[in-house]
Amino acid sequence: MSNPGILYPKLTVIGCGLIGGSVIRAARQHGVVGEVTVADASEAHRARVVELGIAEHVTGDIAEAVKDADLVVIATPVLSIPEIAAQVIPAMKPGATLTDVGSTKANVAEAFRAQDGGKIFAIPGHPIAGTEQSGPDSGFPELFEGRWTILTPLDSDDEHYAAAVARLSAFWRAFGAQVELMDEKHHDLVLAVVSHLPHLIAYTIVGSAADLENVTENEVIKYSASGFRDFTRIAASDPTMWRDIFLANKDAVLEMLGRFTEDLQAMSRAIRWGDADTLHAHFTRTRAIRRGIVAAGQESALPNFGRDRGKS
Amino acid sequence: MSNPGILYPKLTVIGCGLIGGSVIRAARQHGVVGEVTVADASEAHRARVVELGIAEHVTGDIAEAVKDADLVVIATPVLSIPEIAAQVIPAMKPGATLTDVGSTKANVAEAFRAQDGGKIFAIPGHPIAGTEQSGPDSGFPELFEGRWTILTPLDSDDEHYAAAVARLSAFWRAFGAQVELMDEKHHDLVLAVVSHLPHLIAYTIVGSAADLENVTENEVIKYSASGFRDFTRIAASDPTMWRDIFLANKDAVLEMLGRFTEDLQAMSRAIRWGDADTLHAHFTRTRAIRRGIVAAGQESALPNFGRDRGKS
Repeated sequence: MSNPGILYPKLTVIGCGLIGGSVIRAARQHGVVGEVTVADASEAHRARVVELGIAEHVTGDIAEAVKDADLVVIATPVLSIPEIAAQVIPAMKPGATLTDVGSTKANVAEAFRAQDGGKIFAIPGHPIAGTEQSGPDSGFPELFEGRWTILTPLDSDDEHYAAAVARLSAFWRAFGAQVELMDEKHHDLVLAVVSHLPHLIAYTIVGSAADLENVTENEVIKYSASGFRDFTRIAASDPTMWRDIFLANKDAVLEMLGRFTEDLQAMSRAIRWGDADTLHAHFTRTRAIRRGIVAAGQESALPNFGRDRGKS
Repeated sequence: MSNPGILYPKLTVIGCGLIGGSVIRAARQHGVVGEVTVADASEAHRARVVELGIAEHVTGDIAEAVKDADLVVIATPVLSIPEIAAQVIPAMKPGATLTDVGSTKANVAEAFRAQDGGKIFAIPGHPIAGTEQSGPDSGFPELFEGRWTILTPLDSDDEHYAAAVARLSAFWRAFGAQVELMDEKHHDLVLAVVSHLPHLIAYTIVGSAADLENVTENEVIKYSASGFRDFTRIAASDPTMWRDIFLANKDAVLEMLGRFTEDLQAMSRAIRWGDADTLHAHFTRTRAIRRGIVAAGQESALPNFGRDRGKS
C-alpha cells in the first residue's frame, strides 16, 4: 500500500452509508485528505455521523457541502446520482474532482457528461467491495483492501483530465485497492454477470423458499447450512440500492438473465432425462472457476470460508 | 455436548471422503467407538487412510469390513448406496446397526427396506454439514458441531429398533450435532429447497459466466467479490456426489426448480417494466430470512462472514 500524503485537502462525501462511511474512514486512516465534509439527506444519519466524529462538517445542504471541496464522492443509490450531480457540479470549484461509487456506470457517465462544462474533472467510479450491512455505522477502513476499484473516465484527450484520473487512482490505491480503467458500457456488462445477476437470483430463491406451503420457514432456516445460507447473505443487501441497480442496468441484467435461464433449462432437461454424463461434465468444469478465484486472492482457500472450523 | 462413552465397540465406515473421514475423526475424538475399519474402493484412498493412521483396519473388501461391526456407516455417493447395501446387509452380524450419510433419503430407505430381513437395524441418516472439499484428507472432527443430523427411521413398531435409533442419535449428539427424526419423503423435499436447488443454480450460473463471449473469465474472477464468489464455493463441490443427488431426488428438484423459474420470471418482468415498488418490497422481505438464519446460530452475524475484515 502506497502512502502518497495528502491528495485532496478537502473531501466531501455525499451519502454516509457503508461505502461513503468506509471511504471517509480509509481516507482519514491513510492521511490522504485534510478535512472531511459529509452531506446526507437523512437527519438521523447526520446526527449519527456527528456522534461518530468522523467528519469536520456535517450538513444537509449539498451546494454548501461541495463548494470548497477538492474531491467530491457521491455515495448514494445509483438512480439518485443524476439529480445529485445536477446540484453538485454547478456548485463545485473549478479544477476539483467529482467521482461516485455507484454499481452502474453508463447512467452516471451520461449524467456527468450532461452537467460537466469542462470546469471540473468528473470521473465515474466503482469500488467493488461491500458487505450486506448499511448505514453510517457499517463502514470500516479496511473494506477496500485487496479489492478492485474500476474507474470509467469520460472521453477526454485533455492532459489535466488524465492527471485527475491518476490522482483519483492514487487515492483508491492508498486504501489497498487495485485500480482498473474501463469503458462504462463494458463495466455494466461485467457487473451484470459477477454481481447483479447473482443478487437477483439470490433474492429470488430466498423468496421462493419462503413461499412454500409444504416446507416451513423454520425448516429452511434450520437446515440452511447445506447451501441455501450462501444465498441469503447477498439477499440481505440494501433493498433501495439493489432496486436502483436493476433498473439502472436493465438491458445488461435482462440479457444475462436470459442466458442463465437457457442454461438452467438445459440442466433441468439433463436431470429429467437422467443424463448423468452431461451433469458430471458441467459440475467438473465449474470447479476450475472456483480455483481461479482462490488463486487470484479474492477468497480464502479455507474450506467453507473456515466458518465451520472456528473452534478448531 | 454429551459424553456417552463407547456406543459401538466396532465402527466400519464405507467410503472415506469428507463425511466418512469426519465421522471417523469425531468418533475417535469423542471416544464413542472402540476400533475403526475403513472400506474404500479406491486404492489411493486406502493408502492415504493408512498413512493418516485414523483406522485400525483398511480394506477393499466390503463383506470382510462389516462382518464384526456394531455400526456400519455408508458414506459413498447416493446412487451407489443401494448396491452397497445389498453387499453389506447380508454380511452384517445380527443386532448391528446400519446407517448412511447420503443427501437423499427416499432412495436409501427403499434400498434398506429391500435388503433388511429384520436381523439388523437399518436407519437412513443425513448429517447436514459439509465443505466444498473431498477425499480422505478433507475430514475434520468439528464438522458436525452445531449442525443438524436428520434420521429417517423405517416404519417399525419394534422397541429394539427404537432403541437402535436412540443409540444412533446419541452417536451424532456426541459430535455436537442436533438430531431430528423425519419422514424420508419430507426430508427430500426440504433438502431440495435448502440444498439441491441452490447447488443446481450455483453450478448453472458459474457455467453461464464462463461461457460469455464479451466478458473474459479473468474479469469474472477478478471482480467476483461483488456477489458471484458466494456461488462459486458450492459450485466447487464434488461432481459425482452432486450428479447422484440430482438424479436420486429428481422429482423434488424439478418441482422446486419450476417454482424458482416462475418467480425469476416475475422478477425479470418487474425489471423490464420498471416496477420499482415490487422489487423493493421483495428485497425487503428476504432480509428477514437472513436474520432468522443468524439468530438460529447457523451463520455468523459478522458482515460478509468477516472475510473482508480478517486484518482488522
